[in-house]
Amino acid sequence: MSSNARGTLFVISGPSGSGKGTILKEILARRSDLFVSVSATTREPRPGEQEGVSYFFVTRERFLEMIEGGEVLEHASYCGNYYGTPRAEVQKRLDSGVDVILEIEVQGAMQIKKSMPEAVLIFVTPPTPEVLRARLTGRGTESPQVIEKRIETARREYSFIDLYDYVVINDELEKAADDMLAVLRAGALRAGAAGRAVKESFGMN
Amino acid sequence: MSSNARGTLFVISGPSGSGKGTILKEILARRSDLFVSVSATTREPRPGEQEGVSYFFVTRERFLEMIEGGEVLEHASYCGNYYGTPRAEVQKRLDSGVDVILEIEVQGAMQIKKSMPEAVLIFVTPPTPEVLRARLTGRGTESPQVIEKRIETARREYSFIDLYDYVVINDELEKAADDMLAVLRAGALRAGAAGRAVKESFGMN
Repeated sequence: MSSNARGTLFVISGPSGSGKGTILKEILARRSDLFVSVSATTREPRPGEQEGVSYFFVTRERFLEMIEGGEVLEHASYCGNYYGTPRAEVQKRLDSGVDVILEIEVQGAMQIKKSMPEAVLIFVTPPTPEVLRARLTGRGTESPQVIEKRIETARREYSFIDLYDYVVINDELEKAADDMLAVLRAGALRAGAAGRAVKESFGMN
Repeated sequence: MSSNARGTLFVISGPSGSGKGTILKEILARRSDLFVSVSATTREPRPGEQEGVSYFFVTRERFLEMIEGGEVLEHASYCGNYYGTPRAEVQKRLDSGVDVILEIEVQGAMQIKKSMPEAVLIFVTPPTPEVLRARLTGRGTESPQVIEKRIETARREYSFIDLYDYVVINDELEKAADDMLAVLRAGALRAGAAGRAVKESFGMN
């Protein structure tokens, strides 16, 4: 009997400027066994972005077909574009015992929480509201509209924070990465489904 | 703002022979900041047991007074003796930001879960039912009655396992101790109360 015959699905969200991408990069350097899902999107590739690495770039028609056919685990729209997680690859990895990470925003995270309640949701936040504001407003080069949009998005994101399982506060990168690694390790030990499996296998009902 | 202005309460349970005591000793060697609560009991001290280290040894009258006066966080009876966790010291440590560990059995753990839902419950189990049975039956020196009693107790304990938050499988000590350390670190990052605090402090309701 093993606690992780099946992989665990982890969802990481956090506002722009929370540093979740940097933490993730740090973690992957230490846990090469993790699989990070690549999202599909209808937005245009930016210079340097690679098909299948940054995103799977698809047409609007194809994306709607994916939604219709149940080919995405979750999807969300942002600034007029669709973003979503292709289901098949994630399922395949989980089935083969690999832990999978989705870096997605709140809309999608709530869909995952509903459809896969055993998923572990992690919210990354800067240490203080002041740091968050400084990161959202940037170096003064963005337009007021862009900044306003970011603040509005962050406000919505924080309104969902208590529906997440863990909050990682990104004060120092090293500490935040260690926290995240602990969450990934502990997340695979959460009882519930695992507990029921142990209960059955120990024949002590 | 800090996620752990208050300490986190961890409850560790598991059947006789699960090795939870050995794991705990291993952990304390690496996390000297943790506080392990000392239980009060009405049973007689055994040779080598020290007052205030192994247990606080009290009379039956005093124990009943402690229950009446709300001086214990939880209590249970086993083989005609009472066991309980003195409340004051635990509260003091939690209030000062220290993480506290209670090594108690299922009856008490369920009382804690009810009265302090923010507590993190961890169940330690041997890797297989065969190993559990071997450990419960011991080296053949115990009476059938003692063995029967242990199996009955283990059966009751496993029936509560899915009410725990985490299951640590004690296959190799080193791995189990690392798992437990991850759970202790992640446990302090659980959202819920912490999430609500972040939500308020970020003024994004």
